[in-house]
Amino acid sequence: MRDCNAAGFFRMLELDMAAALPDTKPSIGVQSSDDLPTIHGGIVLSKYIIHIIIKSRTIYTFNTHHLDLSMLPFTVTATDGAARRGRLTLAHGTVETPAFMPVGTAGTVKAMTPEGVVATGAEIILGNTYHLMLRPGAERMDALGGLHRFMNWDRPILTDSGGYQVFSLAGRRTMSENGVVFRSHLDGSEHDLSPERSIEIQRLIGSDISMVLDECTAWPATEDEARRSMEMSMHWAKRCRDVFDLRDGYGLFGIVQGSVFPELRRQSAEALTGIGFDGYAVGGLAVGEGQQQMFGVLDFTVPHLPEDRPRYLMGVGKPADIVGAVCRGIDMFDCVLPTRSGRTAQAFVTGGTLNLRNARHADDMSPLDAPCDCPVCAQYGRAYLHHLIKAGEMLAGMLLTTHNLHYYQNLMKTLRAAIEAGTLDQFRTAFGEAQEAGVDGQNDADD
Amino acid sequence: MRDCNAAGFFRMLELDMAAALPDTKPSIGVQSSDDLPTIHGGIVLSKYIIHIIIKSRTIYTFNTHHLDLSMLPFTVTATDGAARRGRLTLAHGTVETPAFMPVGTAGTVKAMTPEGVVATGAEIILGNTYHLMLRPGAERMDALGGLHRFMNWDRPILTDSGGYQVFSLAGRRTMSENGVVFRSHLDGSEHDLSPERSIEIQRLIGSDISMVLDECTAWPATEDEARRSMEMSMHWAKRCRDVFDLRDGYGLFGIVQGSVFPELRRQSAEALTGIGFDGYAVGGLAVGEGQQQMFGVLDFTVPHLPEDRPRYLMGVGKPADIVGAVCRGIDMFDCVLPTRSGRTAQAFVTGGTLNLRNARHADDMSPLDAPCDCPVCAQYGRAYLHHLIKAGEMLAGMLLTTHNLHYYQNLMKTLRAAIEAGTLDQFRTAFGEAQEAGVDGQNDADD
Repeated sequence: MRDCNAAGFFRMLELDMAAALPDTKPSIGVQSSDDLPTIHGGIVLSKYIIHIIIKSRTIYTFNTHHLDLSMLPFTVTATDGAARRGRLTLAHGTVETPAFMPVGTAGTVKAMTPEGVVATGAEIILGNTYHLMLRPGAERMDALGGLHRFMNWDRPILTDSGGYQVFSLAGRRTMSENGVVFRSHLDGSEHDLSPERSIEIQRLIGSDISMVLDECTAWPATEDEARRSMEMSMHWAKRCRDVFDLRDGYGLFGIVQGSVFPELRRQSAEALTGIGFDGYAVGGLAVGEGQQQMFGVLDFTVPHLPEDRPRYLMGVGKPADIVGAVCRGIDMFDCVLPTRSGRTAQAFVTGGTLNLRNARHADDMSPLDAPCDCPVCAQYGRAYLHHLIKAGEMLAGMLLTTHNLHYYQNLMKTLRAAIEAGTLDQFRTAFGEAQEAGVDGQNDADD
Repeated sequence: MRDCNAAGFFRMLELDMAAALPDTKPSIGVQSSDDLPTIHGGIVLSKYIIHIIIKSRTIYTFNTHHLDLSMLPFTVTATDGAARRGRLTLAHGTVETPAFMPVGTAGTVKAMTPEGVVATGAEIILGNTYHLMLRPGAERMDALGGLHRFMNWDRPILTDSGGYQVFSLAGRRTMSENGVVFRSHLDGSEHDLSPERSIEIQRLIGSDISMVLDECTAWPATEDEARRSMEMSMHWAKRCRDVFDLRDGYGLFGIVQGSVFPELRRQSAEALTGIGFDGYAVGGLAVGEGQQQMFGVLDFTVPHLPEDRPRYLMGVGKPADIVGAVCRGIDMFDCVLPTRSGRTAQAFVTGGTLNLRNARHADDMSPLDAPCDCPVCAQYGRAYLHHLIKAGEMLAGMLLTTHNLHYYQNLMKTLRAAIEAGTLDQFRTAFGEAQEAGVDGQNDADD
């Protein structure tokens, strides 16, 4: 049986039942995400037919095959330890996981054409709701045919909720349980971002995967601060789910918060699975806590997430972060590192990074990374990239971003192959040893 | 018979003869660029065999077939009025003329990958000697394998002499008949640019076509100023020819100066054809004199240039300038307009230019130029380009430059086809009417 988006389905059911039988105050919760979820109170599920029975009277009978309420199809095709090899099917295509999503903040992966992004192997990119809602604006984006058409990207898009950027607007925003009122960093205009508006904007953008509005809990935080923040995010998650339009191939991900506190992370994960989402993100990490603490949070959080849903570690990270998180069961990543580094002279290569601004590259026509199969390594030497950087040429950012995205996508490809082959441990060890050895016997990231 | 690089050939001969017969002070000049040039003093040419006779004694006999001294092959395949359709064969490939050369100042056509430049239809690009001699440096460029390898461009490259930029360094240069001493705009270091050094640098760069060092006479200039300037350029042209290394597929172009004075232009053209070059440029134009005066100079200068050699109008220009110059017999062009405009929000389209910064494009998903077959027009709307510009995204410059270079190359393709078809007059009329009509019934270049 195909996945059934039980949460969305029963939310519709609640509304219908409340209208039909105002005295019943129906409340339907999903207890598991098995093929056919079992439901609280008065509802019997039998194979593909769902009967809703209240006070011994069958008031609804649904054939799930005739309802267009499928949860995003996600299949785990292999595992290796906690790591999973999967495939997520979205409106605009499939995504092989573990997957890395290049960041396309303002409707473009900076310094890249869409063809160039596709050529790196990327199957999904991330767009930033905050930036797009301000410019070109959500309603305009919708009128122009949505983000896919606008930016000429016909593969899946995930959008964040806008919250992360809005909350960072210290002094320019007022926050309440209802949401956030803020002033644009572009023109000072006032905007409102509530859970409902965030979901509406993401629908207008046309995102394959929308994210719930949440508060990315600051780090460090006391347990009380983290609890209050997490609980508000869970209220918001429910409000997001309530207004999310069900459409085939489009999904909504919840975000687990709770800082570094195991019990809060557990509560958050359970609150989200209780609501029911197409996927589950781990938020509030990569905010300064360091790799070991981040891995610790994954160790006690991931086990509370449904096995049959994709897991997304937001804003992560360095190659070593990704390797460690994949080993802990994470399926999806996004990070500005490969693109931002590409515009600041840094290349990701075997063993670490190269700073191409360094004068030692001026006479070196060897490729950035000898084992790399990307077009930049095939066609250009380090001396040329060094020259372009010194000359302030746009092509420097274009080529380094291209290489860095290839590096990241090649890393994901290698991780997927290792999971399939059951050799992830060996890969992790070899990767760690290469990082230890450095680049060219040195590490010039800090040059 | 294949073209014979008589000038280079006889320069070698001069040296050999001077060594063999020190008392003869041999001086050999080329009087025409006919298949077999006639030579001053004591030399008889008979078909493919060249006998050099001094004081009734044959001291040299050459079979030109056995000498690898061919002038750049250039064939005029069709004409329409003064306009010519030709093909120039260079070390790195053939160039269909009339041709437009995108400018790749510092070893990159700004905002473009080499594949992207090739895709526009460009067969040759221009590199700037001044920029490359300062960074990465001529000797380093040579050590790194030359500019073609360095920048991953395997088609022909023409380099300017460096003079134009050096002479614009007011207050930072000292000029004499010998050449120019100047300080780098990058680090203040002192450099020397003489005719000999310019040619040496262009050889180290690996240019298919080198340009003689000349002085681009300022505009306006008195006839005396223009004469002095032109005469110095002619001395320099000879010195350049004298040191230019003869290599198959590589050539040296002379540059006609003389400002707006017909007699000076005639003298300059004759001085250059007397020396003998692979091609002839018209310099000192597009410096503020305006289109009509520029066309006037072409009208009285081009007739003095050899019909069997390519003619290059330096630094030109707007589409209408190119159309008018092709009609006057020019074969080659270079200009920063399509690339620079691409980075400043301006698109070349049917009838004129669009300023994509203009807010009127914010909701318009129509292509930049409906008849254009370039990938930008096929895939993106004006609203998206407007958005990218407002957001300061690199992709704006990348896409607009791509389109503009396609526009220019399509223009050249259309001109070549019109010459072949004998319909250049009709095309020129239609082109002029379209420019008259403007873009979308308006011209927003000045918005």
